[in-house]
Amino acid sequence: MNKIKNDIFLRACRKQPVERTPIWIMRQAGRYLPEYRAIRQKADFLTMCKTPELAAEVTIQPVDIIGVDAAIIFSDILVIPEAMGMKLEMHEGKGPIFHKPIRNENDAKSLKKIDPAKDLKYVLDAVSLTKKELNGRVPLIGFSGSPWTLLTYMVEGKGSKNFSSVKSLIYNNPSLAHSVLSRLADAVTDFLSAKIEAGADAVQIFDTWAGILSQNDFEEFSLQYIEMIVSNIKRKKEPVLYFPKGVHFKLRKLSRCGADVISLDWTMNIGKVREKIGKTVALQGNLDPAVLYAGKEKIKEEANKILGLYGEGSGHIFNLGHGILPDVDPENARYLVKVVKEESGKYHKQSEKA
Amino acid sequence: MNKIKNDIFLRACRKQPVERTPIWIMRQAGRYLPEYRAIRQKADFLTMCKTPELAAEVTIQPVDIIGVDAAIIFSDILVIPEAMGMKLEMHEGKGPIFHKPIRNENDAKSLKKIDPAKDLKYVLDAVSLTKKELNGRVPLIGFSGSPWTLLTYMVEGKGSKNFSSVKSLIYNNPSLAHSVLSRLADAVTDFLSAKIEAGADAVQIFDTWAGILSQNDFEEFSLQYIEMIVSNIKRKKEPVLYFPKGVHFKLRKLSRCGADVISLDWTMNIGKVREKIGKTVALQGNLDPAVLYAGKEKIKEEANKILGLYGEGSGHIFNLGHGILPDVDPENARYLVKVVKEESGKYHKQSEKA
Repeated sequence: MNKIKNDIFLRACRKQPVERTPIWIMRQAGRYLPEYRAIRQKADFLTMCKTPELAAEVTIQPVDIIGVDAAIIFSDILVIPEAMGMKLEMHEGKGPIFHKPIRNENDAKSLKKIDPAKDLKYVLDAVSLTKKELNGRVPLIGFSGSPWTLLTYMVEGKGSKNFSSVKSLIYNNPSLAHSVLSRLADAVTDFLSAKIEAGADAVQIFDTWAGILSQNDFEEFSLQYIEMIVSNIKRKKEPVLYFPKGVHFKLRKLSRCGADVISLDWTMNIGKVREKIGKTVALQGNLDPAVLYAGKEKIKEEANKILGLYGEGSGHIFNLGHGILPDVDPENARYLVKVVKEESGKYHKQSEKA
Repeated sequence: MNKIKNDIFLRACRKQPVERTPIWIMRQAGRYLPEYRAIRQKADFLTMCKTPELAAEVTIQPVDIIGVDAAIIFSDILVIPEAMGMKLEMHEGKGPIFHKPIRNENDAKSLKKIDPAKDLKYVLDAVSLTKKELNGRVPLIGFSGSPWTLLTYMVEGKGSKNFSSVKSLIYNNPSLAHSVLSRLADAVTDFLSAKIEAGADAVQIFDTWAGILSQNDFEEFSLQYIEMIVSNIKRKKEPVLYFPKGVHFKLRKLSRCGADVISLDWTMNIGKVREKIGKTVALQGNLDPAVLYAGKEKIKEEANKILGLYGEGSGHIFNLGHGILPDVDPENARYLVKVVKEESGKYHKQSEKA
């Protein structure tokens, strides 16, 4: 494997000294970039995911255009349920649809056990190709949805306001929910291990719907599976990042789940979270994605607030508190990256010498 | 005014001794009740709001059918923007639509100052009529949306996933946002004062979209207006309840906003919140509304958990952590009320003697 030239992201994940705070942006390979839309015009979303050359190209775009310190493989969290046999449709602006959602034992039986090396070979090929084309410029992040978030999509079948179907399932048939969650945990473990094997330098688990659960339900239906996954992933030094969006509670338990980095949404105070759990884990985040609608002055001010709240020393990866919005001006994303690179140096004087 | 026979809700709001925990349910006058749907078949939603006889009838239904300890006037938070001149359409299942949302100074200029006694007379008439028909059985709650939540609807114009328009507004034109928020705060103050004058025994401010804001933005664009409203409402002993959904931070500031009761969503640990701010305010909540999809055993278990977390003594109003879902079996709502009434007595032995 090539030595990585800019490894500042990986060092921050491990809380090793850095000379400035690294930054990447969730959904950085996406619709806000005209260069992405040009490719998207030629191929639909799933074709892009399944064509390693196209996936590699859009994965690398933000490294060139925005200047981020890490690439994240272009893909979708729903490739796992699709590989398990669920027919997936993607509608621009309307979100994903499974026409036959999982509602009972029979539906669940139809889900097949996956072997990522075969069933998700196209993702692994995209990782290898991207890794090669990146040529060590920045690290490459692989990712997966969490079992809970995947289950939510698989049971709801489409966008949901109240998540009635998946909530009904966990309250009325928790053993079925747990049986599918276990199978998903195995699939996620194997998939992330295979991505690392294929060249990913770090992996992130997205738990977009963690925040719809009460505190006990989060532990029972999401966090315990994250712990299993993190302890079973085959990895050497590759960090694991976990993003439990909307989870503002049980921070100490979160910090002991095994992930190296906890990613925070924009409703959290990253300074206070660091006080509580910053000795155990690195933190990622957490600018409100909508701040990128603002002018440069406001972007600079808000970026500085977050850098200041985290304060001195390593262990912070700058990011948004959720994915970049599709109608953001790419110039503003580029400016945010520039500002974080320029302004964060002063927080790392000490750790540099350390 | 009639003396209220069952005033346990009001006593709990004031943290006075109670013999058991009171309960009501957000959106208790709603679609889950066949008796409500029977009336809704004859009149559309806004007609129901605007016809005091119909509004009174559905307001009282859950007192008879479910056995709750308070009635809440059937209405909608968007009657304020409608009275300010915005044409409102309600689509069953799709949510409200304003075809001409507020996006700039010109749009904002078109909003007229309202006089609730004239422009929202139908709501006040519904309050008076309901009060009369309730005949002192239980207290009647009046309500309003918060300025921030109203602004969100007025600027987005329809359901939103990312709240891009209102976020753009606050970041790019904060002075326009503040000018509309001030006007809304005045309208809310006058409206809630008029509701109390018309007979409401308590008022609740719904801040459904508080949780989409970062911590500083919540203070700047929502909480400061709540403080203004609460300090300016004309009231005698009528409690004010505030429900900032999704707000898990700045609890001490929240507890000093002037509201007597803070209502919590289901992601909060009501026991921990009580430890922090329970001396200053009463707390309302906070069962996950989806628990009502479960069987009786689970409903009882979860209700008991919340009662146990709050613990001994007055100052707890049992409720869901958000509105009751439209496809819940009314029998389960009735069972929840029964369980809370039966199980909560043991937490009030001491306060009864107090």
